[in-house]
Amino acid sequence: MYFKAWLNYDGELNENVRDYFQAVFSNYESNVFSKVNRQMYLHAMEEVKAAANSFLGKKPDEYDFIMNEENFTVIEEKYENTEEQKWKRGILLYYVPENQDNEESLSTDGAYEIKQYLDEEKRFDLWTVRASGGRGILYGTYALIRQAICDGKLTDTGVVKPSLALRMLNHWDNLDGSIERGYSGNSFFFSKNQILVDERTAFYARLLASVGINGVVINNVNVKDMATRLISPLYYAKLREMSELFAGYGIQLFMSLNFAAPMELGGLSGCDPLAEDVVRWWKEKMQEVYREIPNLGGFLVKADSEGRPGPFTYGRTHADGANMLAKEIAPYGGLIIWRCFVYNCKQDWRDKKTDRARAGYDNFMPLDGKFLDNVILQIKNGPMDFQVREPISPLFGGLRSTNQMLEVQIAQEYTGQQRHVCYLVPMWKEALDFHTYCKESDDRVQDIIKGKTFGGRNCGMAGVANTGDDPNWTGHDLAAANLYGFGRLSFDNNLSSEEIAREWISMTFPRTPIVMSNLLYILMNSWSTYEHYTSPLGIGWMVNPSYHYGPNVDGYEYDRWGTYHRADCKGIGIDRTSKGTGYSTQYQKQNAMMYEDVATCPDELLLFFHRILYTDRLKSGKTLIQHIYDTHFEGVEEVKEFIRLFCQLEGVLSEDVFQRILNRLTEQLSSAEEWRDVVNTYFYRKSGIEDEKSREIY
Amino acid sequence: MYFKAWLNYDGELNENVRDYFQAVFSNYESNVFSKVNRQMYLHAMEEVKAAANSFLGKKPDEYDFIMNEENFTVIEEKYENTEEQKWKRGILLYYVPENQDNEESLSTDGAYEIKQYLDEEKRFDLWTVRASGGRGILYGTYALIRQAICDGKLTDTGVVKPSLALRMLNHWDNLDGSIERGYSGNSFFFSKNQILVDERTAFYARLLASVGINGVVINNVNVKDMATRLISPLYYAKLREMSELFAGYGIQLFMSLNFAAPMELGGLSGCDPLAEDVVRWWKEKMQEVYREIPNLGGFLVKADSEGRPGPFTYGRTHADGANMLAKEIAPYGGLIIWRCFVYNCKQDWRDKKTDRARAGYDNFMPLDGKFLDNVILQIKNGPMDFQVREPISPLFGGLRSTNQMLEVQIAQEYTGQQRHVCYLVPMWKEALDFHTYCKESDDRVQDIIKGKTFGGRNCGMAGVANTGDDPNWTGHDLAAANLYGFGRLSFDNNLSSEEIAREWISMTFPRTPIVMSNLLYILMNSWSTYEHYTSPLGIGWMVNPSYHYGPNVDGYEYDRWGTYHRADCKGIGIDRTSKGTGYSTQYQKQNAMMYEDVATCPDELLLFFHRILYTDRLKSGKTLIQHIYDTHFEGVEEVKEFIRLFCQLEGVLSEDVFQRILNRLTEQLSSAEEWRDVVNTYFYRKSGIEDEKSREIY
Repeated sequence: MYFKAWLNYDGELNENVRDYFQAVFSNYESNVFSKVNRQMYLHAMEEVKAAANSFLGKKPDEYDFIMNEENFTVIEEKYENTEEQKWKRGILLYYVPENQDNEESLSTDGAYEIKQYLDEEKRFDLWTVRASGGRGILYGTYALIRQAICDGKLTDTGVVKPSLALRMLNHWDNLDGSIERGYSGNSFFFSKNQILVDERTAFYARLLASVGINGVVINNVNVKDMATRLISPLYYAKLREMSELFAGYGIQLFMSLNFAAPMELGGLSGCDPLAEDVVRWWKEKMQEVYREIPNLGGFLVKADSEGRPGPFTYGRTHADGANMLAKEIAPYGGLIIWRCFVYNCKQDWRDKKTDRARAGYDNFMPLDGKFLDNVILQIKNGPMDFQVREPISPLFGGLRSTNQMLEVQIAQEYTGQQRHVCYLVPMWKEALDFHTYCKESDDRVQDIIKGKTFGGRNCGMAGVANTGDDPNWTGHDLAAANLYGFGRLSFDNNLSSEEIAREWISMTFPRTPIVMSNLLYILMNSWSTYEHYTSPLGIGWMVNPSYHYGPNVDGYEYDRWGTYHRADCKGIGIDRTSKGTGYSTQYQKQNAMMYEDVATCPDELLLFFHRILYTDRLKSGKTLIQHIYDTHFEGVEEVKEFIRLFCQLEGVLSEDVFQRILNRLTEQLSSAEEWRDVVNTYFYRKSGIEDEKSREIY
Repeated sequence: MYFKAWLNYDGELNENVRDYFQAVFSNYESNVFSKVNRQMYLHAMEEVKAAANSFLGKKPDEYDFIMNEENFTVIEEKYENTEEQKWKRGILLYYVPENQDNEESLSTDGAYEIKQYLDEEKRFDLWTVRASGGRGILYGTYALIRQAICDGKLTDTGVVKPSLALRMLNHWDNLDGSIERGYSGNSFFFSKNQILVDERTAFYARLLASVGINGVVINNVNVKDMATRLISPLYYAKLREMSELFAGYGIQLFMSLNFAAPMELGGLSGCDPLAEDVVRWWKEKMQEVYREIPNLGGFLVKADSEGRPGPFTYGRTHADGANMLAKEIAPYGGLIIWRCFVYNCKQDWRDKKTDRARAGYDNFMPLDGKFLDNVILQIKNGPMDFQVREPISPLFGGLRSTNQMLEVQIAQEYTGQQRHVCYLVPMWKEALDFHTYCKESDDRVQDIIKGKTFGGRNCGMAGVANTGDDPNWTGHDLAAANLYGFGRLSFDNNLSSEEIAREWISMTFPRTPIVMSNLLYILMNSWSTYEHYTSPLGIGWMVNPSYHYGPNVDGYEYDRWGTYHRADCKGIGIDRTSKGTGYSTQYQKQNAMMYEDVATCPDELLLFFHRILYTDRLKSGKTLIQHIYDTHFEGVEEVKEFIRLFCQLEGVLSEDVFQRILNRLTEQLSSAEEWRDVVNTYFYRKSGIEDEKSREIY
C-alpha cells in the first residue's frame, strides 16, 4: 500500500553496531509518566524492535525485550540473572526525571542524549538514550538508529536539543480528498468528506516523529465547504482519535480555521472579531472543541487573503482578528497561527506603483507588538510566493515584539511539482542563515524563530507538506528528501544540506558508494539546475497560470496577481530600490544598501531588485542576455548529466524504484528542454540579440 | 421563461397591412397532403393567428379562421356567404399541387410565392402564400409576416426558392447539459443525461422555421460518454418525439455520431470501417435507428480530429470511413456529414515547416471524387478555426466531385463570446461571395454549395449554434441577430448584411427610427470594431488558452495547436506563400497569385500570408506598428461610440432588455481596453517603437 520511505531499515549493518540491537532495556517510572509520554516511550521501544528485526533478520516475535517500570537497578538485576553472553550488549532507553539536578539540560522538550554505558566490570556495554520526556526518548531513539545506519557506529551526542520549538507541517488537504498544490495523489487524511485514521496515518506519524516534527495542520488553509464543519460534532470523534494517535508520536494536531465560521457554521450575520455575538460564538466553540479534542494544538488562519474572509471587512486589523481567537483559545493552551500572506490579488498590471513584494511588511509591521503571546505570525520565506529564488521576507528582522514562524513550501508548486527533482533544503538553509542585521548578533532568521533574538517562546518553522496517497508518499521518490530534510533541518538548524542529503540517501536506498555519490550529486545540484532552465535571476513566475507547471514567460504578465517581469526589447526586471517601489527600504540598513546597489546586489536576485538591460554585464562578466541563454542551455545539459548518473544505478536500486525515478527524470528533461527553448526564444525574439555560441534558438 | 426573440410581433402596424390579418383562408387537399406537410400547414395557420393576435390586439379565441380541406371554390362560397364588409381583406394559404404544369417553379422544396389576389368584382382582396409543400407554406407565411412588420406593406415576391438545399444548425450540446463553447447558459436539449422536449423546444423550432433552417444537429460533435448512447434504446422514444416536433416545422433532426461506437457501445474490439463485424454492426444499428426514428436526417461526424477516433487508426482513409456509414444509412435516405476539421493538434511550436492552415486541403483533396453521393464534406469557412479574420478555405474551388457544405460559427467563440457584440453576417457573406476561380463563372463559394458549379444535390451551409437556456436564448440580446442572420442568409444568399440586420431589428425591437439607426450602426460596425481591438490583419488567436476569451498575445505561441504568430522584435506574421509553407498554392491560380504578393494580398489578411516588419508600410501608408497601435486605440473608441448610441435608447427599449445589453456593452468596453493595452504593450515592448501620437502604452 505504501513505501516505508526512510524507515525501511533494510540492508547490511556494521556487525559491531548490530550487536547492540540484540537487546533493549527500558527504565522509566510509570507513576511519573503521563499516558502520552508512556505511549511515546512504547513507540520508541517498538522502533528499536523494528530496526533490530531488520538488522538481525529476526522475526518480530523472536525478539527479546526487557522492560521495567520501576528503576534501572531492577534491570541490572535482571541482566545479571541472564546468560551473560546473550546480554553482552544492548540499548537502554533511560528516563531521567526532570528534577534530577545534574540533568537540567535535558528538560527542554524533545531533548535527548545518546551515551555509552560500560560498567566497571565490563559485564555489560549499553548505549543509552536518555531523556526526561517521551519526545526526547522517541527522538533519541530515532537518532540512535540513524547513527547505526548512516554512520555504521554509535557515538556520544552530548545533550541534543531541538533548534526550534515548533516544527510543523501544513497540509493543504481538502475534505473531498483533493490536495491544493498536491503532486502525490490524493489526501490520506480525508476522502469524500470523511476523516481517515488508519495504518497509513500511524505510519505517517512515525515518519514525522523520526525527523522531529511535532505539529501537523491537517487541512487546507483555504477552508471552504465541509472543512468549515471540522469544528462541529460531525468530525470530533475522528479528530480526537487522530489527535491521540499523533500524540503518541509527539505530534500535536492543528487545524485550519474559517474566519467566517460564525456565519457559515453559526448562522450569525457577520464575523466581526469585535462583535459581541461573534466573540461569544467563538468562546463557546473553543470550549466545545477542546472538550472534544483536548490534545488540539490550535489553529492556522489565512484571513483577508486571496478571497478568504477576514477582519478587513469590518474595518478591523489582523491583530483584532487574531487576538480575539487567541483570547478564546488561551484557556486551553492553544495557539493561533496567523498567516502573513496578505496582498492585493486584484492588481491591475498597468499599475506599476503597487508592489506585491511590499505587501506583507506594509500590512503587518504596523501591528508589531499588538498580538497576544499565543499568536504566531507565519511568514513565507520570501515576500512573494515560493519562487525558485526570492530574497528573505523583510518582516524577519522587522518585527521585534511578535512571535514568528518561518513558512517554507516542501510541495514543489513552483519548483517542478515533484516531476522534476529539486532538493530544497539548501534554499531553506539560506533562509535560516540569513543575517537580518536587526541586532549586533543573533540576528539571523533562525535566531529570531528560536526566540533568541527578541525572546518569544511560541515560534518555529512550518512546511507545506508534499505528501499524498501515492504509494511512495511524495510522487517523485527523490522528493522525499525534502520532507525528510524539512524535519531534520527544523530540528537541527546546524545540519548542512549535504549532511541531511547523505542521511536521507543512507536511510532510504541501498548503502553503496555509487548510490551515495550519484544521488548526492543529483540532489545537491538540483535546485541550481532547476533555476538554470526556469526563470532567471530572481524574476520569478514565467509559469503557466493556475497550474504553475511548464514555461509561459508572459503567463502572469498581464494578470491581476502582482507578478510581473516587465520585459521589453531592451531589458527586464523590477526596480524595487528606493528609486523604484521602495521595497528594498523595508530591510535593515545593511541589507537595504546591499540590495539598493546593482554592484552589491547578489546576481541571483538582480532582476528582483533592478531593471537590467540585456547588454548589461553581470558579475560573471557575461551580458544579461548571454547569461539567460547560457544558463538555459546548461540547465538542460545538467538534467542529462543527472540521467546519466542515475542510469548507473540500474540494478542497484530496486527495479520499480529505478524505473519510477527514471520516468520522472525523463519527463524533467523534456520539460527542461521546453523551458530552455521557450525562455530563450522569448528573449531572442524580444531582444533580437544572437547567442554568442550560435546554438539553436527558435 | 424565455423571450420570443424576433417572433414577438409587438408594436404598431400600418393599418392597411393590418387589415389583411383579419381573416386567414386556407386551401389544401387533405388527400394529397402527408401528415408532416399538414402539420407544417397548420403551424403556418397558427403563425398567422399569432401575428394577427398581436397586430389586432385580439385574444386568440376571438380570431376567426376559415379552413377548407377541399379546394378554393368552397372558400369562395363560404366567403360569399359571410358579411362582405367583414371579409373584405384576408390572407390565403394556397396549396399548389406539384403536378400543376404552370407552377413548376414552386416544386423546389421550400419555395413559395406571395401574390395579391383581387377578384374582378373587387369583392375580396387577398394576399396569398402559394407553395406546393408544407415548408413552402410555412416559409411563405413567415415571409408575409416579415413584410408586414419590416416593410409596413405586402408585396408580390414572385417565386422565392431557398438558395441552399441544406440550412443546418450544429449544436455542441452535451448530454449533461453543458455546451461546448456555449455562452448562453446550458442546453435546452439535454439535462442530466435526459433529453428535453417541451414548450421551449417547440418555440425554438418556430424560431428556426421562421428563418428557413431545415436541419438541426442536436449534440456536440465531440461525442463522448452518454452521447454515444444516443443511438441506443435509452433515448429513441424521446428522439422520435423531438424529430416529429421538428418535422412539423420543416426541420430534420440530425445527430453527431461517435466513430468508435462499435467499440464503446457495441463491445467490438475495434472500429475499422472495413472490418466485417464493424460494418455489420453499423448496418444493424442504422436499421434499428431508422426503425425507431424514421424522420432522422442522418449524422454529423468529427473523426480523427482533436483526439476523436477515426479511420486513421486502421490505416483507412476518411473516404473509407464516411462511405461505410453512408452505405449503411443510404437505404433510409440518410446523410453522412463529415467534418474536414482535421489537423495535427500535437504540433511542436518549434516546428516551422508544418502549417495547420494546409491540413484540411492536404487531407481531403486527394479524396475528391471518392465519396458516395450521400456524404457531404463540411468545411469551415477558413482553414484554421473561426478566427475574426481568415481567408476562405481552399477546399472550396479545390474539390470538384464532392458534396460540400460551408460551416460557420454563430457561437462567438473567438469573437467575444456573446459578451461583445459582433454581427457576423458580413463575414459569412464574404465567404459566400468569394470567387474561387475554379470556373469561368459560377465560381463563388455560394455557387459551389448550391450545386451550381459542379452539380451536387446534397450541399448547403451549417452554423454552430449560439443558443442556450438563457431567457433571451443567446446571452447577448444582440447576438440573436447572428442566429437570425444565419438562417436568413443561408435561405437567401442574395440578402445583404444590412438588409438582414434591418429585418432583425424591426422584428425584435420597437420600430422607431432611432432604434433602427443606432442598432444598425452598432451591428454593422461591430465586426470591424472587434477586429480593431483584437488580433490584427488575419494573424488570429492571441487569446487566453482553453477558454478563448480575453487577450493573451503569446497564449498559443508555445503551444501544440499549430497557431503561431512568430512575433519578434522586428516583425510578425507567417510566410504562407510558395516561398514559405506553400499554403497559398492550394488556391486556384488567380487567388494564389493575389495572396502570394504583398502588393496584392488584401491588408486584412497580410499577416496570415506574409511576415511583415513593424516598419513596413501598409496600403494605407501607415507602418505596421502604427496600424496596430491606431486600430487598437480606435477599437476602444468605437465601443464607446456604441455605448453612447445605445444609451440613447433608454426608455425606448424595455428596461430589462436595455439594462442587459448595456451591461454587456460595458463589459465589452472594459475587455476592449484590456485588449488594447495588452496588445499595444506587447508590441511596444517587443519593437521598442513609440506611438506616433504618444498615447499611453504601458
